[in-house]
Amino acid sequence: MPVAVRDLQMEQDVRGIKIQKVGIRGLEVPIVIIEKVPGRSQRTIGVFNMYVEVSPNQRGTHMSRFVEIANKRKKLNLKMLQDEFLPYLKQKLKANKAHVEVEFTYFIRKQSPMSREFCQLPVKCKFTASDYHKPKLTVITPITTVCPCSLELTQDNSAHNQRGYVTIETISQEIVWIEDIVKIAETAGRFPVYPLLKRPDEKVAVQAAFKKPRFVEDVVREVAKQLKHIRVIEWYKVSCENVESIHNHQAFAEIEKED
Amino acid sequence: MPVAVRDLQMEQDVRGIKIQKVGIRGLEVPIVIIEKVPGRSQRTIGVFNMYVEVSPNQRGTHMSRFVEIANKRKKLNLKMLQDEFLPYLKQKLKANKAHVEVEFTYFIRKQSPMSREFCQLPVKCKFTASDYHKPKLTVITPITTVCPCSLELTQDNSAHNQRGYVTIETISQEIVWIEDIVKIAETAGRFPVYPLLKRPDEKVAVQAAFKKPRFVEDVVREVAKQLKHIRVIEWYKVSCENVESIHNHQAFAEIEKED
Amino acid sequence: MPVAVRDLQMEQDVRGIKIQKVGIRGLEVPIVIIEKVPGRSQRTIGVFNMYVEVSPNQRGTHMSRFVEIANKRKKLNLKMLQDEFLPYLKQKLKANKAHVEVEFTYFIRKQSPMSREFCQLPVKCKFTASDYHKPKLTVITPITTVCPCSLELTQDNSAHNQRGYVTIETISQEIVWIEDIVKIAETAGRFPVYPLLKRPDEKVAVQAAFKKPRFVEDVVREVAKQLKHIRVIEWYKVSCENVESIHNHQAFAEIEKED
Amino acid sequence: MPVAVRDLQMEQDVRGIKIQKVGIRGLEVPIVIIEKVPGRSQRTIGVFNMYVEVSPNQRGTHMSRFVEIANKRKKLNLKMLQDEFLPYLKQKLKANKAHVEVEFTYFIRKQSPMSREFCQLPVKCKFTASDYHKPKLTVITPITTVCPCSLELTQDNSAHNQRGYVTIETISQEIVWIEDIVKIAETAGRFPVYPLLKRPDEKVAVQAAFKKPRFVEDVVREVAKQLKHIRVIEWYKVSCENVESIHNHQAFAEIEKED
Repeated sequence: MPVAVRDLQMEQDVRGIKIQKVGIRGLEVPIVIIEKVPGRSQRTIGVFNMYVEVSPNQRGTHMSRFVEIANKRKKLNLKMLQDEFLPYLKQKLKANKAHVEVEFTYFIRKQSPMSREFCQLPVKCKFTASDYHKPKLTVITPITTVCPCSLELTQDNSAHNQRGYVTIETISQEIVWIEDIVKIAETAGRFPVYPLLKRPDEKVAVQAAFKKPRFVEDVVREVAKQLKHIRVIEWYKVSCENVESIHNHQAFAEIEKED
Repeated sequence: MPVAVRDLQMEQDVRGIKIQKVGIRGLEVPIVIIEKVPGRSQRTIGVFNMYVEVSPNQRGTHMSRFVEIANKRKKLNLKMLQDEFLPYLKQKLKANKAHVEVEFTYFIRKQSPMSREFCQLPVKCKFTASDYHKPKLTVITPITTVCPCSLELTQDNSAHNQRGYVTIETISQEIVWIEDIVKIAETAGRFPVYPLLKRPDEKVAVQAAFKKPRFVEDVVREVAKQLKHIRVIEWYKVSCENVESIHNHQAFAEIEKED
Repeated sequence: MPVAVRDLQMEQDVRGIKIQKVGIRGLEVPIVIIEKVPGRSQRTIGVFNMYVEVSPNQRGTHMSRFVEIANKRKKLNLKMLQDEFLPYLKQKLKANKAHVEVEFTYFIRKQSPMSREFCQLPVKCKFTASDYHKPKLTVITPITTVCPCSLELTQDNSAHNQRGYVTIETISQEIVWIEDIVKIAETAGRFPVYPLLKRPDEKVAVQAAFKKPRFVEDVVREVAKQLKHIRVIEWYKVSCENVESIHNHQAFAEIEKED
Repeated sequence: MPVAVRDLQMEQDVRGIKIQKVGIRGLEVPIVIIEKVPGRSQRTIGVFNMYVEVSPNQRGTHMSRFVEIANKRKKLNLKMLQDEFLPYLKQKLKANKAHVEVEFTYFIRKQSPMSREFCQLPVKCKFTASDYHKPKLTVITPITTVCPCSLELTQDNSAHNQRGYVTIETISQEIVWIEDIVKIAETAGRFPVYPLLKRPDEKVAVQAAFKKPRFVEDVVREVAKQLKHIRVIEWYKVSCENVESIHNHQAFAEIEKED
């Protein structure tokens, strides 16, 4: 006869301290992200962080249920994560509040500027569905920037330039498309980064960047200017981090929308 | 005759958007951290992130000054970073607000429990001095935990156990010592992680951990219970992340002090 | 009238030094990996490192062609990478030798031991096609191990255990399936790591691991014993790295087949 | 009365398989590196990987002794690691062969080209002492390079440029100084990376780089040309990896000395 095994997680806890987030981190699951173009979607790998609130009088939660739930849901956009996944998670875990992050690589189909060849630009994204705030989208877009100060100093059109990363976080009740956020970042950075550039493309890319040099300060302001006018975006934070070509540290600027 | 070169960073900006953080990230500099034992200090490597606020009508800031300032100041504790380094940075950069983070590895001298041999435990720390909040200390301590549920299920004293990381952030006007935070984390985790354990030490370490199994939920509550009673700590956030031995994801719990 | 632009990469080089590897690293491309089960395949993301040899009298190579080629080929196994992709790359780059590495996450479908629930275990893999050696497969499998010494010391069935990673590299002219390599690693580690374990599964998993404790030394020998008997495998290297639960460093063992 | 506890690691192993490397990885210890300038040294943090060979008939080794040994020796150069540390390790572990790697950050004191301000450039280094080969030094130096092709294409002095990393590995019975290797890398890259550049420095730095544009292929050949003439260096491998400013992947070249 089996020994009666206690369900320790369901025991009373006497320490009287609420835990805002209990759950799992770093769970990798194949997922499908719905694209902006109607009817299209793309397969990728989601890294899930999933948490629920544990009330002051309860000892813990059942970790294995998070895994079951993450393995069930395959097709996702941020709205579905907030409106369907989050409530289901709370129901299954008998929790009042939950918070879910899904990180993934998303491919943007691009055409090089002159040779018109197609290739795919990977951007790093995160969906955050939460009972602590409205749904949040995070997109990291690589860009190229030429330093204006350097161009001014040399007076001979030579200037240091480098790869930078624009990180845009937006909070919005309605869907904001990754595709649109990438476009905003690329415009602000002056010239997009392309995986594939043939020689005529490279010429155009470099000259365009030199015609409009930008500090990290300029990049984040250009992005903020555009985000301010998108009605559905209630809050945003934008940063630009440049892998300085002449230093071994990074240049950085960040704007957060204040109320 | 040299061309008059404009100082572009000092130009007027017409976009009218304040930038909260402009500066550099990832600057590595040798530093000296003051220890708790009076008169003692240890050399390590600081990774600096340094930012100032840029007002809406100014285009940018002078990045090279950050590097000059970081290279000047060698001996540090969090109080000096807030009270001396931060004001100096603002003065040199002509800024209203600044925010500085210094990450470093700090060694805690330990003696193994039975053989009494000395060794050094590296803990990852961060000092944050800021005009956006009071000084913040972050310390990540490795611990060992045995799973209580697993011990209950098997009924034969076998149970999965693993390395975990306890991250404690505290905000305090007065100095909180790294040494004290590590002790709190280790007590909560039930048994410290040691770089060096001879055979009699290992026996004691393992048996002690099995005698007091702990969920991640238990660990963060035990830490919170202790932090609550330290008068100078105005705010804290504590998390525990376990590298689960039977899974390939992590278990996680986090408590943040609410007002 | 456009200026005649020289093709610098095709220029003569007078330094007379051959370069074994010239190319690109870190190119992310969506790919499809052919599974062991006939007719099945899975979508994932490949990170490509692609190189060609540059002869002593040639200045360089055309980097953009690598990107074009990586974007064309979608469906892959290691044999196709060696027999089709590599020759095509050399032809397009006019090179004598090439070397290509593709890293990707691969999901193994698993059923938990008692509850029979399905879930997916991610393993990290690498295909290496090369003119410098025969095709090489690398698979990193997470496992659980219980320390035999610790079990012996305590005499009360308590013992430290931890997550470990078994890295197996094999060189073989014929296809070796990822699925088979994962099975070998899991058997050697005594008990597989599962993303999903319900309570009855956890009991079985933990008890099985305690019944057969293994050092890192045992794990690599068990793997080597099995690989030795697989006729098609001409060379192998196997390592096991354990995230020690009672230390903050790793335990490690590695066997390389010698001739 | 205590139970007689077996020393399992010393047991006979019947599988008959030699293990080339058994030991620990990722052990962090404070160390002191001897500088080129006589009498000078600098404190830093060493990350140790330490292994010994385990013979076919022995089950394992005693992991804790590695930690004891690493904690004892503080002041190091590569010669001492090979001639003193390695034999001591073998003696204490009763092993025929050993292999030790120590990774650390090393600071090079630099003066900016015009303003003559001092600052410290961190370079990543590794000492490898081994019974499998002669002592090996690895140094990773950050550099700036301007793309020659891009400069040729635009014909208006605009060109993409970026931070790159030159990794130089050398095998030598006699001491090769980190300071000399960094100088070789910086000369090949055309212009060093400086943590600190005031405005007149930046002008000089950028213009010098544009005057001598270099592909990754050029950089590794320039380094190889110099290493070939250093008599004490018996073998070398040099690579250059550029964080391309107009792409989101890296350009790479590698030369290995062949016999």
